[in-house]
Amino acid sequence: MEHTETEAPPREPNTIYVGKKPTMNYVLACLTQMNNGSNTVTVKARGRAISRAVDVAQVLAKRFATDLKVQSISINTEQVKSATTGGMSNVSSIEIKLSR
Amino acid sequence: MEHTETEAPPREPNTIYVGKKPTMNYVLACLTQMNNGSNTVTVKARGRAISRAVDVAQVLAKRFATDLKVQSISINTEQVKSATTGGMSNVSSIEIKLSR
Repeated sequence: MEHTETEAPPREPNTIYVGKKPTMNYVLACLTQMNNGSNTVTVKARGRAISRAVDVAQVLAKRFATDLKVQSISINTEQVKSATTGGMSNVSSIEIKLSR
Repeated sequence: MEHTETEAPPREPNTIYVGKKPTMNYVLACLTQMNNGSNTVTVKARGRAISRAVDVAQVLAKRFATDLKVQSISINTEQVKSATTGGMSNVSSIEIKLSR
């Protein structure tokens, strides 16, 4: 592990958090991960980004890294603090593990 | 199986197709399924409805039918004909199987 990299480290190793950016940004992030010698990559997302996370996993495994296979998928519920009301609300999350 | 029901039958038995309606509509459809004696229900969705399908599964298993467990989750890519260009495009899909 190189600690001199200038990029911000992910919150968990080998994990790509999918948000609102275009799908290909995250596909590229996953490919970079794999090219750095990792044999696994985990794609995570919450709320409406879940659809995009599935897209990322599919584009990756079907087009750019066909040796990658979906190893496991899990869904969960996370509690987040609402920005508007300040109360807690539930948001669904997904975690897709891919490996070769 | 009763064939005298007035509701349109689902394309596959025990399967709820999640679309653009509010999440609770689909949760209710799943609960109806379970109350009709089924021990399993499959939630399917494509494209942006995938996030909602995960919501449906989570709301169902965590709040309304806590004896239900996620049995398997699979993701796939389907080819659909684009309404605008007439060409084929890929869309991600998800299938969440729940059982008690």
